Amino acid sequence: MANIFDLPPKLLTEEYFEPLVLGENLLIERIISTGQTTPVGEWYNQERDEWVILLQGNATLGYADGSIIQLRPGDYVFIPAHQKHRVEHTSSEPPCIWLAVHVNLERNF
Amino acid sequence: MANIFDLPPKLLTEEYFEPLVLGENLLIERIISTGQTTPVGEWYNQERDEWVILLQGNATLGYADGSIIQLRPGDYVFIPAHQKHRVEHTSSEPPCIWLAVHVNLERNF
Repeated sequence: MANIFDLPPKLLTEEYFEPLVLGENLLIERIISTGQTTPVGEWYNQERDEWVILLQGNATLGYADGSIIQLRPGDYVFIPAHQKHRVEHTSSEPPCIWLAVHVNLERNF
Repeated sequence: MANIFDLPPKLLTEEYFEPLVLGENLLIERIISTGQTTPVGEWYNQERDEWVILLQGNATLGYADGSIIQLRPGDYVFIPAHQKHRVEHTSSEPPCIWLAVHVNLERNF
């Protein structure tokens, strides 16, 4: 048993990605952000669908159509494969703790 | 966007199961427990692997070898397919909010 809110002992300068469950077509991962954002002009454009929930901190996602989503703890979104998105803001106090499930639902059988 | 901590308007007498993402070999679901437990002498014996995290409340899981796990918010466990387990206790104040990912990792490709 482990706890999703237990932080690594060292403060982080880079975003922290921790696989929790890994299959060929599944990744459950914890992400800890401490202020990092997607670099200006860049987008996530993922091969797989992503379901992601913010469990601590606050964060802002941006989409290619200009829409913005403000996330507080407990908020979750589904991001279909190839839906371009950016992380516009992540809090560092407290750090953002994300739980993400990556899967290709079309290949999921 | 939705929030995992938003409770349904009515108080529940039965456990509440809410699919959040559904694929052929994937189910992400929210479970809300308000004191329910697995009936005496019964076990969960699931066809699929389960990764589950308790996000609110406190709960107790029991395994067939007699071991007991006390869960508090943020605690997560991986329960392989056919690992028999029971829910021995769930708090009602506050309700238990679980997030479970069911998948067959052996069939996951």
